[in-house]
Amino acid sequence: MKEITQEEVKDWFRSLQDTICLGLEKLDGKSTFQEDRWQRAEGGGGRSRVIKSGDLIEKGGVNFSAVFGATPKKILSALKLDEADFFASGVSIVLHPSNPWVPIIHMNIRYFEMSSGVWWFGGGIDLTPHFILKDKAKEFHQLIKETCDRHSPYYYPDFKRWADEYFFVKHRNETRGIGGIFFDRLSTEEGFSKPQRWEFVKEIGETFLPAYTRAVADLREREWTNDQKEWQKIRRGRYAEFNLIHDKGTRFGLDTNGRTESVLMSLPPEASWKYDHRPKTSLQKETLALLKKNIDWINVV
Amino acid sequence: MKEITQEEVKDWFRSLQDTICLGLEKLDGKSTFQEDRWQRAEGGGGRSRVIKSGDLIEKGGVNFSAVFGATPKKILSALKLDEADFFASGVSIVLHPSNPWVPIIHMNIRYFEMSSGVWWFGGGIDLTPHFILKDKAKEFHQLIKETCDRHSPYYYPDFKRWADEYFFVKHRNETRGIGGIFFDRLSTEEGFSKPQRWEFVKEIGETFLPAYTRAVADLREREWTNDQKEWQKIRRGRYAEFNLIHDKGTRFGLDTNGRTESVLMSLPPEASWKYDHRPKTSLQKETLALLKKNIDWINVV
Repeated sequence: MKEITQEEVKDWFRSLQDTICLGLEKLDGKSTFQEDRWQRAEGGGGRSRVIKSGDLIEKGGVNFSAVFGATPKKILSALKLDEADFFASGVSIVLHPSNPWVPIIHMNIRYFEMSSGVWWFGGGIDLTPHFILKDKAKEFHQLIKETCDRHSPYYYPDFKRWADEYFFVKHRNETRGIGGIFFDRLSTEEGFSKPQRWEFVKEIGETFLPAYTRAVADLREREWTNDQKEWQKIRRGRYAEFNLIHDKGTRFGLDTNGRTESVLMSLPPEASWKYDHRPKTSLQKETLALLKKNIDWINVV
Repeated sequence: MKEITQEEVKDWFRSLQDTICLGLEKLDGKSTFQEDRWQRAEGGGGRSRVIKSGDLIEKGGVNFSAVFGATPKKILSALKLDEADFFASGVSIVLHPSNPWVPIIHMNIRYFEMSSGVWWFGGGIDLTPHFILKDKAKEFHQLIKETCDRHSPYYYPDFKRWADEYFFVKHRNETRGIGGIFFDRLSTEEGFSKPQRWEFVKEIGETFLPAYTRAVADLREREWTNDQKEWQKIRRGRYAEFNLIHDKGTRFGLDTNGRTESVLMSLPPEASWKYDHRPKTSLQKETLALLKKNIDWINVV
């Protein structure tokens, strides 16, 4: 059986970044990505790519990184592991659209390995519509489920539930959006081999462009009102709350002296907070009613 | 020596909220506070008062609360204390002005007591200008220092340093603003009596209105450009980052199922995040250069 090397993982992630950036530029049709390359003093580095003021994307980032070196003490103690070197690589995406009808999308896939032999994959893809449209939500979940089902019948139900839990914002008693899938520390549990996990993770990465393309279709051209733009800013405020308070990747990046601008590229271009803001329209009310765990989006009516 | 009762503390804080709200309405001249009274299921409650779309204040809150009951487990374990009842009361203020020349102000004073006999005062007052003007910064620190000096020559230097540390945003390598004072768990250390601590805390509360009135003077009428408004939103984004990531009061409120809308009233009305944003004007550059710890604002030139 062919060994999966750090080099192979890194090269594949980097090339996924290229593919996705090219695809998004084509989809956007107006703006292009600006790249910042950065080096990590202790080993490795990355390429941060950001796009702004596009026809579709108001602010977005597609980041690649591959870092290595002595495992930070914070990780060792969290994992209760002895000192060892680590290697970590991945791709992270967050796109904030200008049109409030278009959802925010997030994807992350990553690989982590230690010299002690420990390794795992993690990641997920999820959608945060400002206005939840059931048919669009169903379509997104169906596409993700199809990808999952090609690898295991348990992936979609397990990782969908995991996303519901992970993206639940306790202090607001609502989910961040309609979820999708979330998974972490996938290794050899349940008899999976490393190549099987890797094939799954790669296919999630390859699902990003078609999933986003379908998610924005018919919506990016919809007209919107000032009230709808205002609602978008309120929802973006909630998105910022989740990322700054709860998101483990953001916390980890800030706690371990990550590159702040790359870590916080997920924050929205503009956000609003109004005291005790309440939904006004029926669609706003329905959106809030659907920000719940355990909704069966595949069979939603 | 007269005993300081929970009733006395609570009444004084509540009446301070009244005084400050009346004073701010007069200062604003256009908008008035809206009140929400809330009850805490386990004991106590509060009055949240918010003001918006004023002539001076775009969004602000002046909150009073007095809560009691069994001490939450999270606090007991953090303080390594045995089970006991607690009483906590305080006033919290954050005001976001519409004019970018006017600083954001924050004040909090609070009292905490447990049935085991433990008690302390905490709080602080600090200023976050979007544009730092040295003469205004000096004036603010001088006023706070005068109040502190009436109670102890150590208060201002110690609590000013504490504010520098507390309001330091590590992931941005900058302080939130020009600081002020911050103090916590003031009890009988250094021979202070409870009435002495209480007199000091009350006088900080009474310093709020004159301090804010002076801080906004000459600035609220200044004309501003769109670029300056944009800069204000970027700085407000940093303010939101501090409050959501670092602020202990916010964390504590969210972790202990506090009233979310009251806890998050500190968030700005509108904030922006731009990737890798850099200061353009010399005043913006000077502001960033002054967002540092250990600046002697009293003698700044």
